[in-house]
Amino acid sequence: MSSDSNRRMVILTDGHSNPLTAKTACSVLRYCQNEVIAVLDTGAVGQTAEQLLGTGGTTPVIADLDSAPDAKTLLIGIAPPGGKIPAHWRPIILNAIARGMKIVSGLHEFLADDPEFSAAAVTAGTELVDVRNNDEHDVANRVGVRSDCLRILTVGQDCCVGKMVVSIELTRDLIARQHQAKFVATGQTGILISGDGCPIDCVVSDFISGAVEKQVLAGQDHDILCIEGQGSLAHPRYSAVTLGLLHGSIPHGMVLCYEAGRKSIHGMPEIGLTSLDVLKSAYESAANLMMPSQVIGIAMNSRLLSAEKAEDERHRVREEFKLPVCDVFRHGPGELTEAVLTLKQQIQSR
Amino acid sequence: MSSDSNRRMVILTDGHSNPLTAKTACSVLRYCQNEVIAVLDTGAVGQTAEQLLGTGGTTPVIADLDSAPDAKTLLIGIAPPGGKIPAHWRPIILNAIARGMKIVSGLHEFLADDPEFSAAAVTAGTELVDVRNNDEHDVANRVGVRSDCLRILTVGQDCCVGKMVVSIELTRDLIARQHQAKFVATGQTGILISGDGCPIDCVVSDFISGAVEKQVLAGQDHDILCIEGQGSLAHPRYSAVTLGLLHGSIPHGMVLCYEAGRKSIHGMPEIGLTSLDVLKSAYESAANLMMPSQVIGIAMNSRLLSAEKAEDERHRVREEFKLPVCDVFRHGPGELTEAVLTLKQQIQSR
Repeated sequence: MSSDSNRRMVILTDGHSNPLTAKTACSVLRYCQNEVIAVLDTGAVGQTAEQLLGTGGTTPVIADLDSAPDAKTLLIGIAPPGGKIPAHWRPIILNAIARGMKIVSGLHEFLADDPEFSAAAVTAGTELVDVRNNDEHDVANRVGVRSDCLRILTVGQDCCVGKMVVSIELTRDLIARQHQAKFVATGQTGILISGDGCPIDCVVSDFISGAVEKQVLAGQDHDILCIEGQGSLAHPRYSAVTLGLLHGSIPHGMVLCYEAGRKSIHGMPEIGLTSLDVLKSAYESAANLMMPSQVIGIAMNSRLLSAEKAEDERHRVREEFKLPVCDVFRHGPGELTEAVLTLKQQIQSR
Repeated sequence: MSSDSNRRMVILTDGHSNPLTAKTACSVLRYCQNEVIAVLDTGAVGQTAEQLLGTGGTTPVIADLDSAPDAKTLLIGIAPPGGKIPAHWRPIILNAIARGMKIVSGLHEFLADDPEFSAAAVTAGTELVDVRNNDEHDVANRVGVRSDCLRILTVGQDCCVGKMVVSIELTRDLIARQHQAKFVATGQTGILISGDGCPIDCVVSDFISGAVEKQVLAGQDHDILCIEGQGSLAHPRYSAVTLGLLHGSIPHGMVLCYEAGRKSIHGMPEIGLTSLDVLKSAYESAANLMMPSQVIGIAMNSRLLSAEKAEDERHRVREEFKLPVCDVFRHGPGELTEAVLTLKQQIQSR
């Protein structure tokens, strides 16, 4: 999906190679594996990316950049709360710069604002790319939004439950079924994968809905937009991002995403999750402040469950909500795709 | 309330002297009148500020800075949507800089980012103060929030309905009744009046709740915090700011503010207002995702109504919601103050 098929990336996850913290790495490996040469984690040398991160096939894990002499790009592969670069990564990044590699980061702390990194990049004549850097300064206007371009937003019970992945898998399935669908990226990883989008969590608050609206307007040459959700309405840290995205994209339908078995807010173990039931109502009420909208399906991330437990959970949630429920990896996104197409027909026939 | 009682301000509202656009001017005149020398509006020379803006007493309206030779500060007195400086103000601002005056602005477009202004300020050896400029980069943590420090947030049906004024008047009344209350400013005008606070609409979205939490923690040497609300949960542009503030301040109680007679969103005449009833539920549902909270009173801005019509409206809204209702200017904030103190007692006795 990327706009640059020759990035030749090494993904840096050193010491942080778990699927939640290293979600940028995992998603880029999953959707752009042919552009990734290696994963750099000194503690896991000899493993494959698939063994270390659960995705990425035989992509090797290496200990240093000497093992990847033809790499062109070093990608910072993690997204920690607060978004700062781990201190022990500095020499690795400086080494990559000295080799003339492009450094790509989706962190809140910009590479270009770091005097040591930026001086080194000038010396080496290479580029520092901060995917989250933006200059969004326009408010939403609600002008020119097409009523016949279906907007589907993924919403979640928490951060890091798979909203981006659900939006991408849904888009791919719609395209496979001959629909003009587009994945609209709203976070750094989605942007790295798709080659466009807006890092909305790094937009100044007054302009978040405006920034999202711009993405919607830019995508309206398609018939269906699958918009990447962010955070959760019940997240103590990031609910503002979630609502700005919801009200900026004014979706016709929402897919509610959650991880089965999770008990507390990601990164805040002392704060319990809000129930799916309460959250479904909260999303629908909040969306309906702007435009009629409903949750049309539930995407279950069942990575913590056995196949049997996952079936039980799927059955339970289907019964509770009377909605399509699936794990897009385990079951494929088909049921959700059909719910999207049903909604499209309903809206067209109004 | 300001930390600097010797600002000797001229407030610039030239061509924009109506109480909605010039709300910064109006509020600074109302709460810091002794620091204001004049209002600059070439179209209204000879009037008083009271005549022009409905507040500010005999403060004169002047045509140019020659009429205020001992002024020390030029305050940009407007808050337009998007926050840009009107083009015809540039020569006025450059003249003020050349005179060595400090320029204070609450706009999104920073004075310091303007090459012409910043060069002129260096030449003149004077200061450009962008109240909205901030470097908030901390997420909310929910650690150390005192359960016995009562947090009251003003929430609204729209922007520009008087949330800041209600929070200030409530604080003053609580202080007059011997309570340790503090007004917590969250917007540029509130900051100009109080001398501290955080311009939350200009904080990067991921950190808005964290920035608000910091203000709460800093104010907890008081018993009651009256937190200035922003925007509206039903505002197509600014709802993210509203929710970030709501979830960052986790208020025990909310005062719902509206302007009687207003029909559509401020600055978006084609979009009708959401009813108070729906909004009251929306605020309570959203707040309760974090902590039990309720609307404890309604602040009616009745500036568009006659005294008689205002009484009718007050009666009608009281009947509908069974809550205290008042216009803090017309009736004083007493009923709301009592609702706050009742809530305080209820929480203490739990």
